[in-house]
Amino acid sequence: MADSDSAVAGLLQTQLTGVLEAQAREMLPRGVFDYYAGGSETETTLREAPLAWHRWRLRPRMLSGVAAPNLATTLLGTPVASPIGVPPWALQRMAHPDGELATADACARTGTLMTVSTTATVPLGEVAAVAPQSPKWFQLYQVHGPAYTDDLVRRCAGAGYRALVLTVDLPVLGRRLRDLANDFQLPEGLVMANHPDQADVQADAELPGPAAGGSGVSVRRLDQALDSADKTPPWTYADVEHFAGLTDLPVVVKGVLRGDDAVRCLEAGASAVWVSTHGGRQVDRAVSSAVALVDVVSSVSDHAEVYVDGGIRSGTDALVALALGARAVFCGRPVIWGLVTGGADGVVDVLSRLRVELAHSMTLCGVASVERVSRDLVTT
Amino acid sequence: MADSDSAVAGLLQTQLTGVLEAQAREMLPRGVFDYYAGGSETETTLREAPLAWHRWRLRPRMLSGVAAPNLATTLLGTPVASPIGVPPWALQRMAHPDGELATADACARTGTLMTVSTTATVPLGEVAAVAPQSPKWFQLYQVHGPAYTDDLVRRCAGAGYRALVLTVDLPVLGRRLRDLANDFQLPEGLVMANHPDQADVQADAELPGPAAGGSGVSVRRLDQALDSADKTPPWTYADVEHFAGLTDLPVVVKGVLRGDDAVRCLEAGASAVWVSTHGGRQVDRAVSSAVALVDVVSSVSDHAEVYVDGGIRSGTDALVALALGARAVFCGRPVIWGLVTGGADGVVDVLSRLRVELAHSMTLCGVASVERVSRDLVTT
Amino acid sequence: MADSDSAVAGLLQTQLTGVLEAQAREMLPRGVFDYYAGGSETETTLREAPLAWHRWRLRPRMLSGVAAPNLATTLLGTPVASPIGVPPWALQRMAHPDGELATADACARTGTLMTVSTTATVPLGEVAAVAPQSPKWFQLYQVHGPAYTDDLVRRCAGAGYRALVLTVDLPVLGRRLRDLANDFQLPEGLVMANHPDQADVQADAELPGPAAGGSGVSVRRLDQALDSADKTPPWTYADVEHFAGLTDLPVVVKGVLRGDDAVRCLEAGASAVWVSTHGGRQVDRAVSSAVALVDVVSSVSDHAEVYVDGGIRSGTDALVALALGARAVFCGRPVIWGLVTGGADGVVDVLSRLRVELAHSMTLCGVASVERVSRDLVTT
Amino acid sequence: MADSDSAVAGLLQTQLTGVLEAQAREMLPRGVFDYYAGGSETETTLREAPLAWHRWRLRPRMLSGVAAPNLATTLLGTPVASPIGVPPWALQRMAHPDGELATADACARTGTLMTVSTTATVPLGEVAAVAPQSPKWFQLYQVHGPAYTDDLVRRCAGAGYRALVLTVDLPVLGRRLRDLANDFQLPEGLVMANHPDQADVQADAELPGPAAGGSGVSVRRLDQALDSADKTPPWTYADVEHFAGLTDLPVVVKGVLRGDDAVRCLEAGASAVWVSTHGGRQVDRAVSSAVALVDVVSSVSDHAEVYVDGGIRSGTDALVALALGARAVFCGRPVIWGLVTGGADGVVDVLSRLRVELAHSMTLCGVASVERVSRDLVTT
Repeated sequence: MADSDSAVAGLLQTQLTGVLEAQAREMLPRGVFDYYAGGSETETTLREAPLAWHRWRLRPRMLSGVAAPNLATTLLGTPVASPIGVPPWALQRMAHPDGELATADACARTGTLMTVSTTATVPLGEVAAVAPQSPKWFQLYQVHGPAYTDDLVRRCAGAGYRALVLTVDLPVLGRRLRDLANDFQLPEGLVMANHPDQADVQADAELPGPAAGGSGVSVRRLDQALDSADKTPPWTYADVEHFAGLTDLPVVVKGVLRGDDAVRCLEAGASAVWVSTHGGRQVDRAVSSAVALVDVVSSVSDHAEVYVDGGIRSGTDALVALALGARAVFCGRPVIWGLVTGGADGVVDVLSRLRVELAHSMTLCGVASVERVSRDLVTT
Repeated sequence: MADSDSAVAGLLQTQLTGVLEAQAREMLPRGVFDYYAGGSETETTLREAPLAWHRWRLRPRMLSGVAAPNLATTLLGTPVASPIGVPPWALQRMAHPDGELATADACARTGTLMTVSTTATVPLGEVAAVAPQSPKWFQLYQVHGPAYTDDLVRRCAGAGYRALVLTVDLPVLGRRLRDLANDFQLPEGLVMANHPDQADVQADAELPGPAAGGSGVSVRRLDQALDSADKTPPWTYADVEHFAGLTDLPVVVKGVLRGDDAVRCLEAGASAVWVSTHGGRQVDRAVSSAVALVDVVSSVSDHAEVYVDGGIRSGTDALVALALGARAVFCGRPVIWGLVTGGADGVVDVLSRLRVELAHSMTLCGVASVERVSRDLVTT
Repeated sequence: MADSDSAVAGLLQTQLTGVLEAQAREMLPRGVFDYYAGGSETETTLREAPLAWHRWRLRPRMLSGVAAPNLATTLLGTPVASPIGVPPWALQRMAHPDGELATADACARTGTLMTVSTTATVPLGEVAAVAPQSPKWFQLYQVHGPAYTDDLVRRCAGAGYRALVLTVDLPVLGRRLRDLANDFQLPEGLVMANHPDQADVQADAELPGPAAGGSGVSVRRLDQALDSADKTPPWTYADVEHFAGLTDLPVVVKGVLRGDDAVRCLEAGASAVWVSTHGGRQVDRAVSSAVALVDVVSSVSDHAEVYVDGGIRSGTDALVALALGARAVFCGRPVIWGLVTGGADGVVDVLSRLRVELAHSMTLCGVASVERVSRDLVTT
Repeated sequence: MADSDSAVAGLLQTQLTGVLEAQAREMLPRGVFDYYAGGSETETTLREAPLAWHRWRLRPRMLSGVAAPNLATTLLGTPVASPIGVPPWALQRMAHPDGELATADACARTGTLMTVSTTATVPLGEVAAVAPQSPKWFQLYQVHGPAYTDDLVRRCAGAGYRALVLTVDLPVLGRRLRDLANDFQLPEGLVMANHPDQADVQADAELPGPAAGGSGVSVRRLDQALDSADKTPPWTYADVEHFAGLTDLPVVVKGVLRGDDAVRCLEAGASAVWVSTHGGRQVDRAVSSAVALVDVVSSVSDHAEVYVDGGIRSGTDALVALALGARAVFCGRPVIWGLVTGGADGVVDVLSRLRVELAHSMTLCGVASVERVSRDLVTT
């Protein structure tokens, strides 16, 4: 936060996010902004996500003598400077020319865990090379069939990624009406850098990821997905088992919204579960992440780390999530707007603010460290 | 969905319904639009119906490997392509010149169960003849006294209808203020085709159906209904028993809003109950269908099929209703707007969209078939 | 309802009340309209009253064979045509030149119980003489000291009133800010006809009734009420006992909002309790009548009749109140607007509509008589 | 209330507060108004405070014979005329040239307990001298290190203050975005009169109080507070123990929001706890005072007096708080607007109105004295 000592620096993250989002809306083509900002169908889940955190109230503890809380923690054994991480999001060169390289640089500068997506616009090795010692995880979709996907995983392990994040909530693409209305396409010149032959990507029927939007997702296409079987079937628990055994990388299952599913993931060999609604872009009218988190934490107990994303807009939101049992939170859209508006510096700024807010709330609530955030800190 | 591969095809049913309703409002005379769109008194029940489905949230199951869910089911033993059916609604030639013939054609093309109303503008035999093999039920009001009504039932059985739907929530017409304000009358040239003498219909004091609006329902008339006994008394459980024994057709009782009533219906010989508020046109400030469904399902348990209508506006609404225990849902107003705006093709389009949405939601939620939709899929 | 067979006649009571209120607002001086329409302080209790009835939903019973429900009942043994009565309200000649005489005439024509107020602008004997056989109760405030008040009660008994209604929620006048802002005064030419010397009324420090507004209620005056003891003390249970023994008239205690108070009233000799917030004009931010009714009914059980007023705006509201255990409901403001806009005919019209609505709702809900309205008819 | 006998005098406190606040907004520089009116971050806690009282409803008791309720009580043994006190608030000469002297005068004239702040603009001795017999408490922040602070406490005891109020919810200043946006500074000519060297105050890194705003609180400064330990550590229970033993003054701990914290305060020697959110200026999204009060009262039981502030805007709010178990309420912002708009007379006016409202509500609810306000007077 070297240059943040100004009037605007005091603005709250929540408000800042609004300001940055408005700036990003100005700077981006409509279709690209909508791609990042939108959700599926009625956008109910998208809209409810931040409200579900805001519904909780803090029960601050006084006279605890806390002046400088400790935000450092470990995620699957890897030390990080704070429990606020960057989730995977696709096509970052669409947001800023430096794309994933800028995000990696910002994360390294702030000690933040970065999750790199299969649908990155920079090859996974190049992203890792930005700051080899900085903690990074790799998010995995099935690409070009099982053999190629397995190979991709092995390359991640070699490149220094420390965990594999399986996104399991995309058996079929959610219906994102903004993208359909905008006829959203991958901009010219951008490639899906982790795919075997970028020229073929847009016609790759096996890719369930957002970039499929670029090939003109239509209701006909969705019908095909539902009515025919001539495609690779969606992942099952057998795939979780497969990837858990494929390399030494621990497996995190992302997109879990039920306690029973979480338990089955751990039984299949996952090391952690990540509660997520995919930013409100998959199942519309699903439970909010904050609601699902309570269910998952209660089922998983202390047997595994639980993470969460969806609607985290401030350090206080993060504190609520920690109190509800999350080991870490991931904050997507504010980071996107930071990248759009300021490249690596913009991401550093957003991450620093979130961290200052979290530390400030912890101080006022008398909590000395993230390990000491307890369930009784919050109430509805 | 042969011709639906366009931008608008991606629009969600909920939004589409709004678009179609707006188009229908343009195309129809005010009085006819209001007749279809309106409810009784304060329209509280009408307004709350869709909100009551929307209050529930999905708890999607991941990693189940579902790619193409099976929507097919049976209703009282009759196979149908999906659990989304067409409820009875009156006077369809008022909506489109082809009236019930168009609706029957659309249902046949999509494998949809159609419920034909006593107050149809096409004789029941002609509707059945459109597609003799396509599943159809007949909805019954008392007409011209018991003898004529019994005869009507026997004609249904002969014409290939597979169940008799007794509408029991109309001991007296609900006070639909829009119709009173518009002085709504049956348009010239239209007839109640299943009545003995169409010329007499508008003066038929025994008919409790909506067409009675055409004869100028007034407060004086309502008073007469309340204060005098010189009319056929409303149906009781004895009538359910009577119709259950009259032909081989199974009897469905439509308009049930309480669990105890549902149990008594089954005891009286009904094969199934249909939870309904009559589209918000009868008891104003009644419980919503979604609320009543929970009560009825809990009382009826697995002893009979339970159906529901009222406020279903999207495939996701249908999925919620299935999770709450409905065997089928019936979707009225969206189908009306489809008929008004596009005739048989319009109805096909609406039904197809609802089905795609249901299949899409089931895929994202990891549900392989309608039989496997379970109560724990939803939470409030 | 001789002349109600018109389009407007079909309009719902709720909407009608709005229409009549708007007309009354046009016809009355601002101060008079505000006197009738307003409540105390923030008017929270006034505003919440109708909403508290509307929160309940009906659970209609089907197939009960009801065509013409019976509204007749008895109140403390007196037969009435319906359970909807007219509560006491002050200064009716301010609303219409015929004042209490018109209201009495309308009640007689419709078989409605009328409650005549101590603060009437026509002497109690003249009101009774309008229709000696029509059921009437007398509402009592303390006037000009105990001796005069006792005499007033004896005159009531002689004039044919059948019960004495003690209003107990006025130990001091509520702070009605509209009246204070308007400097509301009793209009010239009107008298409090049941007071010993009408010329003295406006200075009568003992009268706690609304007419005190005419003498310029001020904060100083309120202070005096609170800080000094040189006035007749507010009534206690001893006074209930006193009036119960004074004549043969049964005593109804009006203004009760707690179950324990209701029990004590009965112990002190009351025959019935009347749940009321005084039209939202006394304790602001008190529980709504609908909420208090549930408490009182649960405490009183079947040991006494319980009545309720406050926010009843339609026959369906009345049905909800009956389901919650009220033996009768009293409907004030709609009747006021009827008197203002149409004199006796206006009151007849309002009462008739309320009754038609109640009968209509009962028919649709399958309830044969007011005695058969049961608690399970409603749910929240 | 000598001169309050006018139309406006009848206006409710709630509305009056709005009127006075609007007047104050006109009279004060923007930065000063915002300093008094604002809260921290999203101002959620600020906004919810009055709503949390308003959510409760009164259950008035009738026929209790109460005409003139007794408001007098004792706080830690000191008699006061009413349970409504004045909380500490900083920099009163910014509100009015007479500052704390005017507030002290108004409190003396109305028998109101005044709490004088460490951050007063008049030395504590001079405030006490205004009315030596009028009950006053002293609110304590740590100033200029422990030795100086201890000395300050001893001077309070000597000056006639009767209790020491430790504000414990300020381990670090809340982020008050209005002050940051306005670059709020202590106006020229004003001094923190209880500090050793007023000229140094604005650079005093140890002062956690609001005046720190004057030195340009920035995110950098907040970072320093969080990341470094070169400052006096925040108070702990050891400090409560220390101050409880330092003089004969009983210790009140202000800023408690949890029942378990309250118990620990008493164990550490506190005589009473004061539930407060610091006017919504410290922990944003904390539980409302009304919610915390219930928790604290339930934990503390009858073992100590419990006070509350935050969102009390009317006498009825005060009555709700008493019913929930508060021994006294403190009312800040209305008193501020009274001082701004009318000096000592303005404060007298506000305090008198609050008291009249409380007495009026108690009379209508049949409560004879503040000791007899019971928990069953309110319900949600």
